[in-house]
Amino acid sequence: MDATQLERLVAQIGDEILARVPRAGGHPPTAEGLNIADLVCPGCTQRCAQTCARKTRDIIAAGADRVSASHKLTRIDPGIAALIDHTLLKPEGTRDEIVKLCREAREFSFASVCVNPYWVPLVAAELKGSPVKVCTVVGFPLGATPSSIKVAETEETVRNGAQEVDMVLNIGALRSGDFETVKNDIRAVAEAAHRGGAILKVILETALLDDNQKAMACTLAKLAGADFVKTSTGFSKSGATAQDIALMRSVVGPEIGVKASGGIRSLADLQSMAAAGASRIGASASVKIMQEAAA
Amino acid sequence: MDATQLERLVAQIGDEILARVPRAGGHPPTAEGLNIADLVCPGCTQRCAQTCARKTRDIIAAGADRVSASHKLTRIDPGIAALIDHTLLKPEGTRDEIVKLCREAREFSFASVCVNPYWVPLVAAELKGSPVKVCTVVGFPLGATPSSIKVAETEETVRNGAQEVDMVLNIGALRSGDFETVKNDIRAVAEAAHRGGAILKVILETALLDDNQKAMACTLAKLAGADFVKTSTGFSKSGATAQDIALMRSVVGPEIGVKASGGIRSLADLQSMAAAGASRIGASASVKIMQEAAA
Repeated sequence: MDATQLERLVAQIGDEILARVPRAGGHPPTAEGLNIADLVCPGCTQRCAQTCARKTRDIIAAGADRVSASHKLTRIDPGIAALIDHTLLKPEGTRDEIVKLCREAREFSFASVCVNPYWVPLVAAELKGSPVKVCTVVGFPLGATPSSIKVAETEETVRNGAQEVDMVLNIGALRSGDFETVKNDIRAVAEAAHRGGAILKVILETALLDDNQKAMACTLAKLAGADFVKTSTGFSKSGATAQDIALMRSVVGPEIGVKASGGIRSLADLQSMAAAGASRIGASASVKIMQEAAA
Repeated sequence: MDATQLERLVAQIGDEILARVPRAGGHPPTAEGLNIADLVCPGCTQRCAQTCARKTRDIIAAGADRVSASHKLTRIDPGIAALIDHTLLKPEGTRDEIVKLCREAREFSFASVCVNPYWVPLVAAELKGSPVKVCTVVGFPLGATPSSIKVAETEETVRNGAQEVDMVLNIGALRSGDFETVKNDIRAVAEAAHRGGAILKVILETALLDDNQKAMACTLAKLAGADFVKTSTGFSKSGATAQDIALMRSVVGPEIGVKASGGIRSLADLQSMAAAGASRIGASASVKIMQEAAA
């Protein structure tokens, strides 16, 4: 294969990724699954995450070497960028930092910008006219507020422009065995989000649960109409692990999304999560990850 | 002084403490300030925190030696217990743990039980008929929700039985120099709390602020009608320090309360905070502290 053929192949792969990567939090039917392996290896008829993740790295590496010289690297990047919720949830975040976050998200075409509810009106204004979604958090990061407050918070943030809502489930109720409370809490917030045209991700805070509790939480979230399950708030003892992603994916199946979040700081972290079944990645180090992908 | 005289003196001090320690979050006029130094050294006509804190330790130590033998130590303990908000805010706290918390609070006569909003109805039921107050948190622990949500959360928790509300101020807005937002946010929540007969404590999250920002936050909180300023959520990088307590007390004066919270794990910690000007202590290790006081 000569240089021209290789460049054409890389361009085709870029087009394929652009065409197939979902822009919203939704999830394509089944064979069109969001696994990064599928994105770069469309010929596969079965899930082969580990192999394909390796292939991804090889293709990106090969493409980067050849393509960066001709400044066409951005043909590859969107496949990764479209997985990322570009996130700033630290309480001390300032207006200037939020504006910068939005500018970066537009530049790299991240899936969304994820901020605390107070900043939603600003983010909605900053992202106006762009395909980047507005994402926020509810009952965050402890999950121990009454459903009525989580619903009010969801309605308010959706009115203010939020298109994706990441709620924390009632961890204490789950650990107390009060499954009805947990399910009804999620259902009430899911209904409020969906009424406003937003999708709902349910944060488990895996660091505080054992494997059985993680499986129960995924079951209840799916039953209650969640669009995604998500590992972590980023404020607990630890964040996402590939093992937890695999467990969560195995429980919820291909029908709803799985978001890995908390401690994802490198391209290798992202690829490991995607290989394990994650269809969305929450990260604050998103720009660094994109720079790694381009390196 | 013989043993009988000493026992009478200890009993008188106990009565004095019981009579003068505030049972609610309120704050006595002025000379009746809440400083623990004043409580044990009522003859003092001026604030002499360091000296009196030393005296406190001496008196307690002397009293403990003499009084524990005759099982009257509890005459001393309430002065310390009445300073403490007995706190469980970890998201994984279960129903059983909350019930135990309430039982301990009744037993030791702590000022309040402080829990996440979801648990307020349970705590209100468990503490019914006791003088121990129901305390909860709002916009917790990030403070980055819109005022409308903080107000809704306050109204709901007060309806559910909360008598004290600890809110987190809008840290990002403060650090962005948006003082009007910070003041109006506190004022809206203070009004909602007061309408329901509750008092409001404003959490600064001192770990995220420099000294000037701490002083500004105290000024805004006092202007906006807060009943207390409070150092920390217990979820950030660090908690209360005696220096911060002294700074906060110097800014708000004697008219409103100062609550130390975050990392207070021993009687020595509590005494150091009280000596620096704290009139309330938030702690999860409250029972251990009382055991130390009784040892």
